[in-house]
Amino acid sequence: MKKIAVLGYGNIGSGVVEVIRRNQDIIAKRVGEAVEVKYVLDLRDFPGDPMEHKVVHDIGTIVNDPEIEIICETMGGNEPAFTFSKKALEQGKSVCTSNKELVANHGPELLELAAKNHCNYMFEASVGGGIPIIRPMNTALAPEKMEAITGILNGTTNYMLTEMEQKGTAYEDVLRQAQELGYAERNPEADVEGYDAGRKIAILCSLMAGKNVKYEDVYTEGITKLTAADFKYANKLNMSIKLLAMGKLAGADENGEETYVAMVAPCMLAASHPLSTVNEVFNAIFVKGNLLGETMYYGKGAGKLPTASAVVSDVIDCARHKGETMPCLWKNENVKMADMMDTRKRFFFRIKLEDAAKAADLFGSLARVDAGVTGECGYLTEMMTERTFAEKQKEVAMLGRIRVEA
Amino acid sequence: MKKIAVLGYGNIGSGVVEVIRRNQDIIAKRVGEAVEVKYVLDLRDFPGDPMEHKVVHDIGTIVNDPEIEIICETMGGNEPAFTFSKKALEQGKSVCTSNKELVANHGPELLELAAKNHCNYMFEASVGGGIPIIRPMNTALAPEKMEAITGILNGTTNYMLTEMEQKGTAYEDVLRQAQELGYAERNPEADVEGYDAGRKIAILCSLMAGKNVKYEDVYTEGITKLTAADFKYANKLNMSIKLLAMGKLAGADENGEETYVAMVAPCMLAASHPLSTVNEVFNAIFVKGNLLGETMYYGKGAGKLPTASAVVSDVIDCARHKGETMPCLWKNENVKMADMMDTRKRFFFRIKLEDAAKAADLFGSLARVDAGVTGECGYLTEMMTERTFAEKQKEVAMLGRIRVEA
Repeated sequence: MKKIAVLGYGNIGSGVVEVIRRNQDIIAKRVGEAVEVKYVLDLRDFPGDPMEHKVVHDIGTIVNDPEIEIICETMGGNEPAFTFSKKALEQGKSVCTSNKELVANHGPELLELAAKNHCNYMFEASVGGGIPIIRPMNTALAPEKMEAITGILNGTTNYMLTEMEQKGTAYEDVLRQAQELGYAERNPEADVEGYDAGRKIAILCSLMAGKNVKYEDVYTEGITKLTAADFKYANKLNMSIKLLAMGKLAGADENGEETYVAMVAPCMLAASHPLSTVNEVFNAIFVKGNLLGETMYYGKGAGKLPTASAVVSDVIDCARHKGETMPCLWKNENVKMADMMDTRKRFFFRIKLEDAAKAADLFGSLARVDAGVTGECGYLTEMMTERTFAEKQKEVAMLGRIRVEA
Repeated sequence: MKKIAVLGYGNIGSGVVEVIRRNQDIIAKRVGEAVEVKYVLDLRDFPGDPMEHKVVHDIGTIVNDPEIEIICETMGGNEPAFTFSKKALEQGKSVCTSNKELVANHGPELLELAAKNHCNYMFEASVGGGIPIIRPMNTALAPEKMEAITGILNGTTNYMLTEMEQKGTAYEDVLRQAQELGYAERNPEADVEGYDAGRKIAILCSLMAGKNVKYEDVYTEGITKLTAADFKYANKLNMSIKLLAMGKLAGADENGEETYVAMVAPCMLAASHPLSTVNEVFNAIFVKGNLLGETMYYGKGAGKLPTASAVVSDVIDCARHKGETMPCLWKNENVKMADMMDTRKRFFFRIKLEDAAKAADLFGSLARVDAGVTGECGYLTEMMTERTFAEKQKEVAMLGRIRVEA
């Protein structure tokens, strides 16, 4: 019998308990013995809950119990999750987490600590909910030089953009609706400003680079400025608007060291692009390898059971590899970032009709788009650097602008 | 230095040599030491080729060399691949294969032999080319009770169907075109009759069931009867026609033992279904777990480098797990199959106008579809079993019929 502990009995934590209970026979078969939750750590008590008598309030009870081999950290946030994870790893207990914030901030440090103590720090559930992405990057893509990652990594904003696209709903209305459905938090900043997707692309980009891409180095732009009018133009262009999280190998610096860029921003995407059919709360991630080309991973990017299932897949892996640290591509060194202003894209912008001539002068070659919005029109630029576009943008009053992914 | 051997210096075998050469630094980093191809086994000589001096003609040279730890079997076919793989595994040498025929026919036997000799029989490249699917099923989906798999597993036919759909090309013309481009073989039977996809779904279904699903038990229907007219109706219905490979948990027999069905057949698919945008030679696979819901895996389903990259990902895994057999869900017992005639679907059929009244009588509730094809019309049935449809089909002369996936 493998005994495990769950830290935090909220949405994901109670999901882990449910996955282990409902699929106990299957899990026992995979591990070679039964897996049982011995403790649940939470500040609260849960009278009447089936786990009532397993609830403890002191992390010491768990980390000092030699029976506990594996700990699921589903608390979220930096502290006390960071301190608790360190204590567990120092005792040689593997930690399986869904906590993207902690992984983005302290992943490599915790991975090192796990290696030192012959156990594992696992974070499949921290990106893409139930979509297997961390493990494929560490194993199936191991022979590849990974060059680019493009993903829809936030289910809340993808739900909102799908509604805006399909029903023409205004931003404020769709946000209220998402909040009513429980998809968006009362304070929606982390989702709508792209911070959540930013943490996730920092994690994926770190695996791609094999070195730490700091969350603060990810350029982040949210969806708060998008309007119903933007979707009219997108529709006219047979495109979708998606909040894309992107990381890529940019080139090399003067010493030959590889440089990377990472960003989160709403982008127009052709209807033929596989990411354009990723709707509602689904997530999907494209990874480009130098020899393999592109592979994509798709599924439910959030939700109690899918995320909990990913945590439990890590538990099974830890149980199968007791005393052995599984390889992870992410080393504890900082990556060299390139300047995102040097990256090249096409841009779409909207402008008042009276400024159209000025814009045409300024940009030279533009493709005009009319979507029946009174008093304005849209333009698609040619490929140019972010810097060039930003400079021109200063010269003329735009009503909005969106990047275009080919 | 890890020394490996490659059996068969054809398309995939030479791809393995190329992946190892081009990404040698990355691979060395992942494995912890360099990986070198010491031998290439082939009946032919390759004068002038960089591997010229590594070519051997006797499998004994390889299996008796204690330096060789891992062997890539990229020969294809049953023999001599089966005999060579057994010899290698008996010597404790891991085998990484792209040979779907051998895996479908003798997979569980070779997996047992590998376990007995503390090495591995790996077959990531046997299904979906470069798409990671075997490994996710064995690891990320380990906590799940897998209930259904639906995939586009044959790139040749998917290319042909994409052309027929987008350009209205006739079957015979698109087949000739695929042969000219090298996508289809001169004898295209294995692809167009669905046999290749049938072998692949037998492998995936075996992993899902944890037991052997025999290739002979997969119901197989090819694309040879599809016509340009069928695509006119599909277009009218806003659907695609794809050759789908499907396996699913059907239920349980009278002793409570789980039963499965597996089939390959052209199906109509709504344009909103993610598989409907999988075009050209791409492959994609949906796996449904009981708690996780659906995840999808997408990428290049064939081709020299993507397939070779998958073989090399297995080589890296074997190198990382020397002396240890990695878990595989597929055990050497036969699964209980359900009767596919009991499965339920909607059907589309085409019929001469003069037989329309008779069909309406026979089926009761039908939805009529007109696509401007002279002298005939189409109908969509309600959900019914294969048996019921087959019985009714005997009563009225249909011009064609296609299953519909919701």
